Amino acid sequence: MEHIQGGVCAAKGFMAGGVHCGIRKNKSKRDLAMIFSAVPASAAAVYTTNLVKGAPIYVTQRNIANGVAQMAICNSGNANTCNADGEAAALQMCRLAAEAAHVKPEDVIVASTGVIGQPLPIEPIANGVAPLFASLSDHGSAEAAEGIMTTDTRLKEVAVAFTASGITCRLGGIAKGSGMIHPNLATMLVFLTCDAAISPAMLQKALAENVKDTFNMVSVDGDTSTNDMVSIMANGMAGNPTIDGEGADYNAFCEALNEVTTTLCRMIAKDGEGASRLITCRVEGGKTVKDAKLAAKAVCCSSLLKAAIFGADANWGRVLCALGYSGADMDVHKVDVSFRSAMGIISVCEMGAGVPFSEEDAKTILLEDEIEVLITLRDGDACATAWGCDLTYDYVKINGDYRT
Amino acid sequence: MEHIQGGVCAAKGFMAGGVHCGIRKNKSKRDLAMIFSAVPASAAAVYTTNLVKGAPIYVTQRNIANGVAQMAICNSGNANTCNADGEAAALQMCRLAAEAAHVKPEDVIVASTGVIGQPLPIEPIANGVAPLFASLSDHGSAEAAEGIMTTDTRLKEVAVAFTASGITCRLGGIAKGSGMIHPNLATMLVFLTCDAAISPAMLQKALAENVKDTFNMVSVDGDTSTNDMVSIMANGMAGNPTIDGEGADYNAFCEALNEVTTTLCRMIAKDGEGASRLITCRVEGGKTVKDAKLAAKAVCCSSLLKAAIFGADANWGRVLCALGYSGADMDVHKVDVSFRSAMGIISVCEMGAGVPFSEEDAKTILLEDEIEVLITLRDGDACATAWGCDLTYDYVKINGDYRT
Repeated sequence: MEHIQGGVCAAKGFMAGGVHCGIRKNKSKRDLAMIFSAVPASAAAVYTTNLVKGAPIYVTQRNIANGVAQMAICNSGNANTCNADGEAAALQMCRLAAEAAHVKPEDVIVASTGVIGQPLPIEPIANGVAPLFASLSDHGSAEAAEGIMTTDTRLKEVAVAFTASGITCRLGGIAKGSGMIHPNLATMLVFLTCDAAISPAMLQKALAENVKDTFNMVSVDGDTSTNDMVSIMANGMAGNPTIDGEGADYNAFCEALNEVTTTLCRMIAKDGEGASRLITCRVEGGKTVKDAKLAAKAVCCSSLLKAAIFGADANWGRVLCALGYSGADMDVHKVDVSFRSAMGIISVCEMGAGVPFSEEDAKTILLEDEIEVLITLRDGDACATAWGCDLTYDYVKINGDYRT
Repeated sequence: MEHIQGGVCAAKGFMAGGVHCGIRKNKSKRDLAMIFSAVPASAAAVYTTNLVKGAPIYVTQRNIANGVAQMAICNSGNANTCNADGEAAALQMCRLAAEAAHVKPEDVIVASTGVIGQPLPIEPIANGVAPLFASLSDHGSAEAAEGIMTTDTRLKEVAVAFTASGITCRLGGIAKGSGMIHPNLATMLVFLTCDAAISPAMLQKALAENVKDTFNMVSVDGDTSTNDMVSIMANGMAGNPTIDGEGADYNAFCEALNEVTTTLCRMIAKDGEGASRLITCRVEGGKTVKDAKLAAKAVCCSSLLKAAIFGADANWGRVLCALGYSGADMDVHKVDVSFRSAMGIISVCEMGAGVPFSEEDAKTILLEDEIEVLITLRDGDACATAWGCDLTYDYVKINGDYRT
């Protein structure tokens, strides 16, 4: 497996693009994105667990119930959630996209992201869809990635090549997600494409399993969004024998999927609203995977720890505090904690109590932009990794006046 | 029942005080507090549910297991948590206080608050306890309240008078709490005193019931502290017939207790770290009390909503989002949301969807320093109230470099 260029267009037969259609006032920001497969593809998705769901979630769920999709359309600037005619608007988006591409409206994955509770104006989309379709290209991944961004500051795209039955396949993705991110099934918008041939059932299985360890382990602010969705289309154009059961090819697919989703997770956490630092919390020695995950997530979600990391302050007491209320079954008197970055590693707590350390060395380590919090529980063999970011002035600034 | 002056000294026979003993570097900040009852008192307490507990928690639990205490000692500046000899230090605090007051060490309630994971130096306390005891007075509540403060910006004290069997009794309290506050049993340090005669069993029952609707419904930052404790001493000096069962006197006691604790809750939330606004979330029409509480707490805990309130932005979509992931059983299509303050009330969402409203009027309402988020679920008769505060630049500033 190797990383390659191209994002969602790395896989054969996929084109993508993004335009400014007018949902956003800022004309320099693309607000409508499209991904199109030359042939119908196996499709799968996972959705937010929030009871309040965006209208596009319901429409997409119905559209890909048969395991087939050929394109995706997504706008930013308006979540099409908690408004009167949201489903009609989402269905209309599907029809408009399908007409432009001469496919069936039921083969469209639809998504929206942005402000909750305002009617989605359909005119900009109606006007924008034809030029958008005309602009699609096999190097349009970045335009699509920009089109789905909200408060994101960086494009998020990645792709890998892998081998199934000796055939080279490609799997890539784009993501948006910066705030309102918390572990609870899918926690952002992610569109994945692949040219491997794989049955819809195995595709859904692979995706559902994968998100448990990837997108479900990312938290920016503890708020689970109403519009989260991770979707994948696999069009089979690589020509491999269809993966329709477990085995070496399925494992290779899952490994590629995990590489792409893990990379996107790190990108999302690092670009968390206002974030200056990526925090990766790695827990080892947990009694069960559930305990290890609870522990890792609680640390990444702690506002106090996040603020301390922003200040490059090795306040490990907040790590212990978060472990203590995490709900994980553990013996707090056996816990070790270290901080690690490109500048080195420093042990700050052993067997649940502080050890002397150089505050100066700790500061040097914590001033890097990627910080690891390493925790050993000494309760078993289970491990887990969670991703988050620091809590900064800019998070407050961004969210203090989001709508204007 | 009426509000009266005096805090923890309002009840007959209680004296209090606070001094700077040297745990903190800042000599102008008192860091050691004491409350003393002229006679042994019925005692009860509730404690943090965090698995990581401060050493004083364990010592106090043992000391008041017999339902009796005569004094409380508490330092700020160091939590005496996650360090090697914490329990020895907490026991030593009890002995020092007991010696000064000529009571038994087992009749001392001990507490610490401040940085986690650093050894508690006992010398400042050993030197400070005698002058502290000598300084106790029946108007020393404010000094004690200052002695327990950490990042608090305001003293928190309150007292009421009530009648039991025709006898006037008094109940008062002091509290500290600003960060690391989240609903999960006691969530801060609170010392309550009362001169009513009440059995230890009824005192514990009243306190345990009360915190479910009061201190368990306050959140500043979602972090449950390691050192939380709410304690109460009732010395019987008012001369009422001992309350040893349910009835009118017990109800009067509970009502007074609720008035004091509710007032302290509002004070704590309003003085949350960096807070500029008190947020009170009132949920009505819940299917069960549990559902109403889950809903109210989720709204008060949402970082996104807290940041929006800081910005006086009527971003009610974030209220819906929080309700959706709260875990409460509800029909999100029947939810109404209004914002209210001293400047008026404005409806922003009805039946789960936005209604047109004046952004200008909303801004005027949200610029007040006490904001109510009113939610109607139309699912039943259950109600709940939660308290929180906005998320501001200062929260990040305070916690970015807490230890220095």
